[in-house]
Amino acid sequence: MSVSELAARLERPFSGDGDVAIDGVASLESAGPGDLGYVRSSAFASRARASAAAALVAPPDIDVGDRPVIRSEQPGFDFVRATRLLHPSAAVAAGIASSASVAPDASVDPTASIGPGCAIGARARVGAHTLLHANVTVYDDAEIGADCVIHSGCVLREATRVGARVLLQPGVMLGGDGFAYVAGVGGTIEKVPQMGRVVVDDDVEIGANTTVDRGALGDTRIRRGAKIDNLVQIGHGCDVGEDVLIIAQAGLSGSTVVEKGAIVMAQAGVVGHLTIGERAVVGPQCGVHKDVPARVRVLGSPQREGRLQQKIVAALPRLPDLLRRVRAIEKRLAPGGGGDGNG
Amino acid sequence: MSVSELAARLERPFSGDGDVAIDGVASLESAGPGDLGYVRSSAFASRARASAAAALVAPPDIDVGDRPVIRSEQPGFDFVRATRLLHPSAAVAAGIASSASVAPDASVDPTASIGPGCAIGARARVGAHTLLHANVTVYDDAEIGADCVIHSGCVLREATRVGARVLLQPGVMLGGDGFAYVAGVGGTIEKVPQMGRVVVDDDVEIGANTTVDRGALGDTRIRRGAKIDNLVQIGHGCDVGEDVLIIAQAGLSGSTVVEKGAIVMAQAGVVGHLTIGERAVVGPQCGVHKDVPARVRVLGSPQREGRLQQKIVAALPRLPDLLRRVRAIEKRLAPGGGGDGNG
Amino acid sequence: MSVSELAARLERPFSGDGDVAIDGVASLESAGPGDLGYVRSSAFASRARASAAAALVAPPDIDVGDRPVIRSEQPGFDFVRATRLLHPSAAVAAGIASSASVAPDASVDPTASIGPGCAIGARARVGAHTLLHANVTVYDDAEIGADCVIHSGCVLREATRVGARVLLQPGVMLGGDGFAYVAGVGGTIEKVPQMGRVVVDDDVEIGANTTVDRGALGDTRIRRGAKIDNLVQIGHGCDVGEDVLIIAQAGLSGSTVVEKGAIVMAQAGVVGHLTIGERAVVGPQCGVHKDVPARVRVLGSPQREGRLQQKIVAALPRLPDLLRRVRAIEKRLAPGGGGDGNG
Repeated sequence: MSVSELAARLERPFSGDGDVAIDGVASLESAGPGDLGYVRSSAFASRARASAAAALVAPPDIDVGDRPVIRSEQPGFDFVRATRLLHPSAAVAAGIASSASVAPDASVDPTASIGPGCAIGARARVGAHTLLHANVTVYDDAEIGADCVIHSGCVLREATRVGARVLLQPGVMLGGDGFAYVAGVGGTIEKVPQMGRVVVDDDVEIGANTTVDRGALGDTRIRRGAKIDNLVQIGHGCDVGEDVLIIAQAGLSGSTVVEKGAIVMAQAGVVGHLTIGERAVVGPQCGVHKDVPARVRVLGSPQREGRLQQKIVAALPRLPDLLRRVRAIEKRLAPGGGGDGNG
Repeated sequence: MSVSELAARLERPFSGDGDVAIDGVASLESAGPGDLGYVRSSAFASRARASAAAALVAPPDIDVGDRPVIRSEQPGFDFVRATRLLHPSAAVAAGIASSASVAPDASVDPTASIGPGCAIGARARVGAHTLLHANVTVYDDAEIGADCVIHSGCVLREATRVGARVLLQPGVMLGGDGFAYVAGVGGTIEKVPQMGRVVVDDDVEIGANTTVDRGALGDTRIRRGAKIDNLVQIGHGCDVGEDVLIIAQAGLSGSTVVEKGAIVMAQAGVVGHLTIGERAVVGPQCGVHKDVPARVRVLGSPQREGRLQQKIVAALPRLPDLLRRVRAIEKRLAPGGGGDGNG
Repeated sequence: MSVSELAARLERPFSGDGDVAIDGVASLESAGPGDLGYVRSSAFASRARASAAAALVAPPDIDVGDRPVIRSEQPGFDFVRATRLLHPSAAVAAGIASSASVAPDASVDPTASIGPGCAIGARARVGAHTLLHANVTVYDDAEIGADCVIHSGCVLREATRVGARVLLQPGVMLGGDGFAYVAGVGGTIEKVPQMGRVVVDDDVEIGANTTVDRGALGDTRIRRGAKIDNLVQIGHGCDVGEDVLIIAQAGLSGSTVVEKGAIVMAQAGVVGHLTIGERAVVGPQCGVHKDVPARVRVLGSPQREGRLQQKIVAALPRLPDLLRRVRAIEKRLAPGGGGDGNG
């Protein structure tokens, strides 16, 4: 594709030689002839000028040297769009691999693709153009919508619901039993049956080896557009809101509500039955033990309002010396200790 | 089932119309006609009165409105029992799926059920009425007892032992090599062969994508009734005691001993070769670097006795201001700084 | 094998009865007749003397009682070597299991072993003497070198490269999409296509259920000899250096560089685009938010230089009392508060 053609499809202006051919994308450092790179901001201008990229997507008014450049106010977004145009997803052959096992009363759309070793349970449903890579397990009564990609090793337990355009990375476990026990007679520990489901709405993406437990009575819900990273734990009965981001190795205990647009950063943990408000931010490794109001940022373990926690963190290195200083003051003020400072 | 019949099978008294039919369980909020709900304590009384549940399990002396109510001193436990009566587990067809691969010298009980894509190694054994969902892998010489449920994606490596009534959620990995290396000649790093096994006793439950490593020389042991949540790491040579609870994303380094009835909360970590005493509690995100005595609760990273850590946490927000206050005292006591406060 | 023969093959001196037969290895506590044990240091001398081991590997000059003993300056290393001699790996039958699915244009070395339920994609390559246990999935264009062991449940996504003598424990996920989104038009969240690969060099070992994401544009790289434990998260574009150790449940955000010989301890987390210098040590549960220089040890969350953090940790229990003491000083210095201590 030529630079001029690419610019036209992106509906962005370009300068320089529009006939230069582009056949792929690359980082500024690794780009060579035929590659399109992109410039995030003026901070990357010198790296851009040093790049061997054949052409660039760049913000207006940044000098990126003598080469074709497509100008954009949103260079990251337009580079993503260019990537999709230059590397269209390979079409996947529809059909069911001979080594897959599909229950007779399961319903697999004829345009879906079911890889080798997949197991599809009774009454389960797989939607149009959905791709199950090898060795995916779909239990009885589970449903997957259209245009999903489910990677190898994923397991969807009984009655899980997955919407359209959902992307599950390898090893995602949906619908494991929640962790719930009650004391029985004579100190025994009795398992609480987990009767609810996992319900994943449209346009959700879930990272590798992440686990989402089924609800005890109601459902565990992951709402439209939420993005969940690798090795995250979502407890039973959680409600993860629209466009929420949860970063790697974070964990939500049972019945946590994360409202629309909130962000839970890596390795953070949330005690159960709490609400993380709309557009709130929970910092990395944060320990959340009470509600986080909307638009508030919390840091630390246990959580504190962000600026307070930053002040504490800044003050802590002075604590050992502070102990010494207070001791010195006390000595001085002690009988015979040197009096009032005028001695 | 009628309310009167259910109460009789639970051996609990009831009041109200015993002929009301119950066909399922639900939360107070989602319950409708035909549903049984339950009231944990008097704190839930108003929610109970607002519920549309057809009948309730409730503690004595709590007013839950005008409907049939089964009275119990242990409403949670009796609700669990009612759930089991109302939703009995589906009987599973015995047999080996045609796409499963079973070694000729493996021993699978005729009442066991082996799902599609399972692989059972040489000399492995599967007990009576045990259910392996699809795509479970059992290595050579591993043994699984009776009445177990092993969910999809689980892997039991060589010679793993699993007792009776064990429940493994999807993606549990038993018997991976422990992480052990020694310095060799010339600075090389040499792997220490891991010769031990994982031994899981009766009535244990292990959560999704949790990993339990095999011992180096001896075994890694998970004792009767222990319950382990999702994404937990159990290092080689650990000994997890009876009825221990380990919550999601916690990790035990090698040779940790967790004694009977102790609790390790979410995202906590334990340095190796330590003992967590009987009924001790390790708080969430706690970093344990020395033994925890029996019945002691530790919090924080690094660990401290619980009340001390709470005092520190309560004091920390005042640290930045304390620095300012001590500076003011020092100024005042400095020569010419204002003397003794009477200046 | 006799003690004298074992000593000869280890090229170490021995004392005592060289004809004693050894047929296995064990810990000092569990060893019995026929077992070889080992003594790490003089601290273990009394346990060694109490052991029923038939023979021992021990440092020079430690009295381990009256039995054959092989003397070594590196007893741990020589015990590992002895273990390999006494327990040679079982030879694995070459060939492809009938229930495996191998693309017609995939290339599997005739000496490789492909277990039941494995799926090998188009143009994928598996090297000589490499063993894939059951239910491994290798996507299109992925390559695995010679003499590797890939355990069950592992997934290697498109174009992943794995070198020689690599060991993947069960459930390792290589090549999941990195977590990357850009703001699109009107507040939409757009996925950034992940075009790079995961490249794993020779002699790497990766623990159970660990996830390594593919690079966005370039590759994610795990270099020669690195050892990664269970449930670790390696973000897209990371570069993990030679002989690096990363312990369980640690996480590296995108584009982290960990230089040769550095150690990242359990449950530590590293914010993206940082460098952990050569032979640096990141402590357990540490939160790294800026570069760590070579050979420096950091502790705490957020990270601090190790000794400073230890001083803060030691001082913290005195903080609550310090607040009281400063208040007392202030009272005393207040008008009428008791003056200068001489009152």
